[in-house]
Amino acid sequence: MSKKKVIIFGSTGSIGLNTLAVIRADRQSFEVVGICANNNVDTLLSQIKEFKPRYVCVADEMSARKIMGKIPGNITFFKGEAGLLEFAHVECDISVMAITGISCLRPLWENIPCARRIALANKESIVTAGKFLFKRAAKFHTEIIPVDSEINSLFQLFNSEREFNRVYITASGGSLFDYKKADLDKVTAKKVLTHPTWKMGKRITVDSATLVNKAFEVVETHEFFNLPYDKIKVVIHRESIVHAIAERGDHTLFSCMYPPDMKIPIAFSLYYPERIFDKGKALMNKKFSLAFEPIDIGQFPGFSTVLEAAKKGKAYLAAVNGADEAAVEGFLDKKIKFTDIAAIIAKVLACCRAPEITGIHEVFFWDKWGRETAEAYIRGKK
Amino acid sequence: MSKKKVIIFGSTGSIGLNTLAVIRADRQSFEVVGICANNNVDTLLSQIKEFKPRYVCVADEMSARKIMGKIPGNITFFKGEAGLLEFAHVECDISVMAITGISCLRPLWENIPCARRIALANKESIVTAGKFLFKRAAKFHTEIIPVDSEINSLFQLFNSEREFNRVYITASGGSLFDYKKADLDKVTAKKVLTHPTWKMGKRITVDSATLVNKAFEVVETHEFFNLPYDKIKVVIHRESIVHAIAERGDHTLFSCMYPPDMKIPIAFSLYYPERIFDKGKALMNKKFSLAFEPIDIGQFPGFSTVLEAAKKGKAYLAAVNGADEAAVEGFLDKKIKFTDIAAIIAKVLACCRAPEITGIHEVFFWDKWGRETAEAYIRGKK
Repeated sequence: MSKKKVIIFGSTGSIGLNTLAVIRADRQSFEVVGICANNNVDTLLSQIKEFKPRYVCVADEMSARKIMGKIPGNITFFKGEAGLLEFAHVECDISVMAITGISCLRPLWENIPCARRIALANKESIVTAGKFLFKRAAKFHTEIIPVDSEINSLFQLFNSEREFNRVYITASGGSLFDYKKADLDKVTAKKVLTHPTWKMGKRITVDSATLVNKAFEVVETHEFFNLPYDKIKVVIHRESIVHAIAERGDHTLFSCMYPPDMKIPIAFSLYYPERIFDKGKALMNKKFSLAFEPIDIGQFPGFSTVLEAAKKGKAYLAAVNGADEAAVEGFLDKKIKFTDIAAIIAKVLACCRAPEITGIHEVFFWDKWGRETAEAYIRGKK
Repeated sequence: MSKKKVIIFGSTGSIGLNTLAVIRADRQSFEVVGICANNNVDTLLSQIKEFKPRYVCVADEMSARKIMGKIPGNITFFKGEAGLLEFAHVECDISVMAITGISCLRPLWENIPCARRIALANKESIVTAGKFLFKRAAKFHTEIIPVDSEINSLFQLFNSEREFNRVYITASGGSLFDYKKADLDKVTAKKVLTHPTWKMGKRITVDSATLVNKAFEVVETHEFFNLPYDKIKVVIHRESIVHAIAERGDHTLFSCMYPPDMKIPIAFSLYYPERIFDKGKALMNKKFSLAFEPIDIGQFPGFSTVLEAAKKGKAYLAAVNGADEAAVEGFLDKKIKFTDIAAIIAKVLACCRAPEITGIHEVFFWDKWGRETAEAYIRGKK
């Protein structure tokens, strides 16, 4: 069997590193033909040395200039935003889309005709432009497999049987779950960034604490499986072992479980429909317990704001996404308090007046509008 | 759509009552054409009044004589052991096999050609004669659906996908799980019969405390799904909500959950492949937790004895089943201590020398041999 050609968009981030760890354990099955990073040139250089890709891309111009001289001559090098879109046209069997934020949308769009399968780890693109992306994927017969553990678990549960009453995605509750509401004003970025179960990027870790991330996953579920919002529920599950539960017509529940290690859903998406990767910990050999409780919405105003935006339309989701990105940055830069994040996205949503989105270019407009409106609020705060 | 014709073998027992409760809630879908009991004539009479079956059977001769005069003239009445086998020849869409113990085997055998589907709630028949029964069912195109919650859950999990690494069936641990080994000598029948999660018949409740029941379920799993014994594991799960877990090649676990209410798997087996019954409690609306721990085999010598018998052959399983039935009776009659149950079945197994079984008549021989050998030990105890 020939090796599967893999391209990794965002190879130096958390998902990228985990993808390379999976491939490192089975060089017989995969060939890394391309890697792409934004500005982490040191890590990228060591990846080039180890995996010898034929194509390399650095999206950030400054970083690209720094690294150019060090790239071996047999490698095709792409740089900057335009280079990234060219890099997205390299043909491959599987592309792992792990660029963070809305910046993933354009390269993903360009990549759809060139990849046979996309292992999609980016949330914002589906949340804001799912409809357009799935239509394009169908047109080019490109398979999209969700990597996000909750959506990945639903994909596994739905694999056999699509008729369900209701689905539940689990939320760990993030790093501040045990905080009293009154104390949330004072929490530091360091505290918020200490996630109890998952090791992830900064924005998603903050978004886990506000549950904005979970609300985006509700939208993702809606988009991926074409499920109405009233059939998608969130349940607090601190241990992050059960990722999703599907409830059949007779209330029987089917759950999908694996330890909180992104290598598992990444490997699933690379090997599918095979299941080769067995490097994960076996859960059942030891004592463990799983707890579930209904979510207390009042504790998480950001969660409700995102779902309110979802009901209004894609432009509103794009605006809220931009606003949240700006607000999280503002919090990490100590410009605003933790509780201001939810307050700001609610304000941005409240003053948003947007038409129905007709194409992905409008997603960028409303995302930018949301970000700039949020930034104005943040400046006002100072 | 025409109503499905249902016959219930053992209509006055726990499974029988639950089956009638499911049917009572949906008289549009099912017609009870026949019911059969051993000796509980009062309950049987009220069931006749409510469900107006065309066929009624009473297996116990004495009880049959008591009830005969009270049976409406338009009902065909069967009595005694011979009558039960005739009753088993009545044609139906679904027969619910809920006669307890090895006595189920003969009517089940006779019934296979006459039922389109058998909802099988009896364990002993599969444990001792699974191979013969499944061969006969295949010959007559009779579908067998397991009602036992663990096996039923595996059936649901396997429904879509048969390739699994390993399966786990859960054990509540029964009524004595928190007892110290030294205190087991003194426990009373009353204490043992108080099962923490399931309401069931007496023998199965005692067998839950010794874990003999769980070992029989391991054998049942082996027979039903043709799985090797080393792929079937038991895990302690006190809450009885997760009934079975299937582990895929990449260690991902799929679990099947419903509250400990036999109406749920019974309804599954009646409606399958539809899922209409939604009378069960919805689990996900409230806080709950699920704990798992490896089984401490040393605590449950009866469990190991049954699996040792399984490795030796069907005759040994039949002997151990007979011995266990006698020992449980002996315990309930206060002739022996709780801990003697496991000791007696181990002794019976140790002195058993049996050939390979070639047909179901031999099952009865070895079951009887086991029972009588155990009874001799019990008499020796007095």
